[in-house]
Amino acid sequence: MRYRKLGKWGLKVSEISLGAWVTFGDVVKDKETVREIVRIAYEGGVNFFDNADVYAKGLAEEIMGEILQEFPRHTLVLSTKAYWPMSEDPNDRGLSRKHLLESITKSLKRLKTDYVDIFFAHRFDPEVPMEEIVYAMHTIVEKGYALYWGTSEWPAARIAEAVAFARENGLHPPVVEQPQYSMLYRERVENEILPEAERFGLGLVVWSPLAMGMLTGRYDQGIPEDSRFARYPQFAERFLTEENRKKVLKLKEVADELGLTRTQLALAWVLRLPGISSAITGATRPEQIRESLGAAGVDLPKDALERIEAILKGEA
Amino acid sequence: MRYRKLGKWGLKVSEISLGAWVTFGDVVKDKETVREIVRIAYEGGVNFFDNADVYAKGLAEEIMGEILQEFPRHTLVLSTKAYWPMSEDPNDRGLSRKHLLESITKSLKRLKTDYVDIFFAHRFDPEVPMEEIVYAMHTIVEKGYALYWGTSEWPAARIAEAVAFARENGLHPPVVEQPQYSMLYRERVENEILPEAERFGLGLVVWSPLAMGMLTGRYDQGIPEDSRFARYPQFAERFLTEENRKKVLKLKEVADELGLTRTQLALAWVLRLPGISSAITGATRPEQIRESLGAAGVDLPKDALERIEAILKGEA
Amino acid sequence: MRYRKLGKWGLKVSEISLGAWVTFGDVVKDKETVREIVRIAYEGGVNFFDNADVYAKGLAEEIMGEILQEFPRHTLVLSTKAYWPMSEDPNDRGLSRKHLLESITKSLKRLKTDYVDIFFAHRFDPEVPMEEIVYAMHTIVEKGYALYWGTSEWPAARIAEAVAFARENGLHPPVVEQPQYSMLYRERVENEILPEAERFGLGLVVWSPLAMGMLTGRYDQGIPEDSRFARYPQFAERFLTEENRKKVLKLKEVADELGLTRTQLALAWVLRLPGISSAITGATRPEQIRESLGAAGVDLPKDALERIEAILKGEA
Amino acid sequence: MRYRKLGKWGLKVSEISLGAWVTFGDVVKDKETVREIVRIAYEGGVNFFDNADVYAKGLAEEIMGEILQEFPRHTLVLSTKAYWPMSEDPNDRGLSRKHLLESITKSLKRLKTDYVDIFFAHRFDPEVPMEEIVYAMHTIVEKGYALYWGTSEWPAARIAEAVAFARENGLHPPVVEQPQYSMLYRERVENEILPEAERFGLGLVVWSPLAMGMLTGRYDQGIPEDSRFARYPQFAERFLTEENRKKVLKLKEVADELGLTRTQLALAWVLRLPGISSAITGATRPEQIRESLGAAGVDLPKDALERIEAILKGEA
Repeated sequence: MRYRKLGKWGLKVSEISLGAWVTFGDVVKDKETVREIVRIAYEGGVNFFDNADVYAKGLAEEIMGEILQEFPRHTLVLSTKAYWPMSEDPNDRGLSRKHLLESITKSLKRLKTDYVDIFFAHRFDPEVPMEEIVYAMHTIVEKGYALYWGTSEWPAARIAEAVAFARENGLHPPVVEQPQYSMLYRERVENEILPEAERFGLGLVVWSPLAMGMLTGRYDQGIPEDSRFARYPQFAERFLTEENRKKVLKLKEVADELGLTRTQLALAWVLRLPGISSAITGATRPEQIRESLGAAGVDLPKDALERIEAILKGEA
Repeated sequence: MRYRKLGKWGLKVSEISLGAWVTFGDVVKDKETVREIVRIAYEGGVNFFDNADVYAKGLAEEIMGEILQEFPRHTLVLSTKAYWPMSEDPNDRGLSRKHLLESITKSLKRLKTDYVDIFFAHRFDPEVPMEEIVYAMHTIVEKGYALYWGTSEWPAARIAEAVAFARENGLHPPVVEQPQYSMLYRERVENEILPEAERFGLGLVVWSPLAMGMLTGRYDQGIPEDSRFARYPQFAERFLTEENRKKVLKLKEVADELGLTRTQLALAWVLRLPGISSAITGATRPEQIRESLGAAGVDLPKDALERIEAILKGEA
Repeated sequence: MRYRKLGKWGLKVSEISLGAWVTFGDVVKDKETVREIVRIAYEGGVNFFDNADVYAKGLAEEIMGEILQEFPRHTLVLSTKAYWPMSEDPNDRGLSRKHLLESITKSLKRLKTDYVDIFFAHRFDPEVPMEEIVYAMHTIVEKGYALYWGTSEWPAARIAEAVAFARENGLHPPVVEQPQYSMLYRERVENEILPEAERFGLGLVVWSPLAMGMLTGRYDQGIPEDSRFARYPQFAERFLTEENRKKVLKLKEVADELGLTRTQLALAWVLRLPGISSAITGATRPEQIRESLGAAGVDLPKDALERIEAILKGEA
Repeated sequence: MRYRKLGKWGLKVSEISLGAWVTFGDVVKDKETVREIVRIAYEGGVNFFDNADVYAKGLAEEIMGEILQEFPRHTLVLSTKAYWPMSEDPNDRGLSRKHLLESITKSLKRLKTDYVDIFFAHRFDPEVPMEEIVYAMHTIVEKGYALYWGTSEWPAARIAEAVAFARENGLHPPVVEQPQYSMLYRERVENEILPEAERFGLGLVVWSPLAMGMLTGRYDQGIPEDSRFARYPQFAERFLTEENRKKVLKLKEVADELGLTRTQLALAWVLRLPGISSAITGATRPEQIRESLGAAGVDLPKDALERIEAILKGEA
């Protein structure tokens, strides 16, 4: 496994990381399968395990927390997040001081650890003043509940504001942003987020690098019954267009020539950018994480990158 | 129940909230009655329960703390306060660092919780320098004893000074003021406190929105034997004037037309101002809290507000 | 008992307070006598009990800590101090961060309390930079080991430097100085310390207001065998001059006319200055503390003060 | 034993101190021997015991921690360090917030103490921004894990940057640097580090004052089988030159005349500089520490210093 710094900061994360999103505790109900997936990832060098309170409403954290007890804590980079509603309660959501502090406390309990490495504000919350968010995150870092804090899917301007507010007031700034990024969802990161991250030294760890599975080839022949697109039609609507299907089939040729699967190609492509520290993958079966691990350390040759670019632009 | 933000801050409180003042542990000695009142409030969507060390000299906190154990902590917005003498001891009062820290510690123990959401300075204390007050409140927030701190019945200039001092020194500013406000006690809030609160983004939660019961119609026929005015003649003196009696009788007509009780009308009227986050009601009987809950979410129509204005100004 | 604010700050101390210096655990070896003295003081309204690590090398704190368990903690203003060597060890003394933090931790254990109200730097330590002293004291206040910190016998310029350094760096400033002050030892306080204390709002609590007993009349007939001057000849040398003996005899006339003992006169005289918050007295016998308590609340008339002034200046 | 202040700061360290480097737990496997060495040192007045996580991969800390339980904690100045890899793990090294906090926590556990006196950044880490390092060290001091923090073998410019960054942001600055320094390894300290240390008031505690044993005379006749140069050929290569051998033989004459061993001469020579607070010695046998202790308090006469200077410059 190859490791990258989180932007300018000292923390190092594996190029390929494992996210508990959607899958753990939700789709994958068999704890032994989860255990196997996590063990394969860990033994393959994955150190970054990405969690959130909201994944399976806490159950994903419970399971991850239980399984990760096997490994020395300092070899893990654990994250969790807060923002999405955990219940109907008006304060059980968002980025208020109340919810951030209550949420991290509960996440740590579920994860069975004294601290996470990164605590993410899962989205920006326009209802809460920036000073409340940054002071709460500062408190969380100072209390030792998290070593670093980050943002996820925040507008670039709000990240800039958070960093500036932290600097002005001697508070811990965010050190990482977690945006969605893949061959089929590029613009926001490339135009807006990457320049911002470079300016402030933020690391980027990206979610859905496989476009919800679209880039793996799983949907070449339509939507299998037990697939993610079958469960979440809104994802199919976004990604499963005729145009995308054609692109994904063309990408197969590039992958084949390089001796990679399309999954590996898509992950290695995301990691071509030095500003991206890690691609967060999911897995519902052991084979999937094994396949993803094959993308670590792969540096795509220049001509392959050019051919991919042409395919993605519809020029090939 | 409708919820409102506490000024510009992220905390959300129910429009109707329940205060332990005077009643719990003092008038209402039967714990089962208190339990029923609290449960009705909670099930009706009340999340803000307002306490103080001084209510029944700690007993109100004890009872509230015991009853609230039934509900998940994060669904509650608990407050308490310090300032009023708890004993003859010269340091057992006021806003010194000593008293604030000793008081919150004892309140948390009585309330059986690790933190309150809001810790109020129950009055301003001119004997203590602003820096001592704000630093002590900052310490209390940093230690996690309170998530936010606020003021109650502070002069606008002192609130402004506290906010400015906090900003200059990187300390937690007060986020909420708790003034008295009702149809029969308006001037201070409307002229002085509301503009100040808007300027600094403070929330307002108001006490005695029913003018000690005067606005409910309870005193239409004089002072019943077991009523609050019978127990506290100073309240009767302030509110039970002939002029007020006439106003309250006229308000009944408006309430009747809207299908509201006078209690509900008085609460909805307080909540007509978006700058007011919550009306703190008391209850000695289950029916009272049920009645108050009926005021939540009621938006008084423009013409009713105009008629009420005329009545209160003695022009109708 | 009358109470006074500690300078501009919110803490209130009894005009007459009890110090453990020299006496407890050292001269007074009988714990029941100490218990009786402390109880008389407490019941007479004394709330300020002044301690130091070095008094009887920790034993005074042990005894005081044990006896004070009887009283509610919030009714007590406890102090302790650090600076003087507790052993031959080169770090077991002075105002280094190491010694201050290690010393307060050990004092709290001996005093059997979670915090003292005031932690005094017992002398200034020119070997330690001001930033180290003030940051360490700040840490001690922030950790909650002490509510306030103060100085004892510091040069006015060093107090000023400490306050200024604290202000510049957002740290807790000292709030009280403890100098020696009595009818026979006046200059330093009146010329140097009082103006400084007023400028910065510091309280003053004074030690040896009876000039080591000289002002009580105990040495009218020479040095009794079991007296303090017998035990500490250096004190006798400083105070037991022929000139002082004459003054003390003349003061008896003033005291007699006012119906006071000379002890009470000397204490009331110290407290004539509003800038002095408390006179710290010692006691080896119950009668002594009873006598001292008689000085609380006494306001010496103008003409008595003038006669005393003349006596002290050798003009009467 | 003579003690010196750590630069301008309040902490005092013994001129001769004991380092666990290389020896404890690594070469010296017999715990009773280590215990004897430590006891001789302690009884000879050594108070500074220098440790690091990496010495024998934690075992040196374990042993030192166990043995030092015998002595009152406040009489010890304990240090430890972090930077060097403790495993293959990418985060188990360097000066990231993650590693510094995880490392100190584990060191405290091994040392069986609540705090170290000094926590050293064992080398500078160019991969971590200065703000991350200084904030993490500040957190460690504020949490009470360490009383002071320092650097080891940092470039002067990086020390200056750390001090300046700390000052600008109100954080704890480093108070001590630990460089290598001996008669045979002088330039860096004398040209670069001493002026820097004086400018910022940093203390210097130096390692390898005997040039890995070269200055003791142990290698006069070549490399003994069980010697350090036999185990670490790279040290032999650096120090065991023909030129150095000649110098070391000439130094014997100076030592003999002064009634010192060459070990003592080399240590006293290091301590001729008032800017150096302590010479950290190692010992694998009780005789060695006894010999080193003989250098404490020795002030080399001016003419001896001149002769040594000539020898070291190859002019004698």
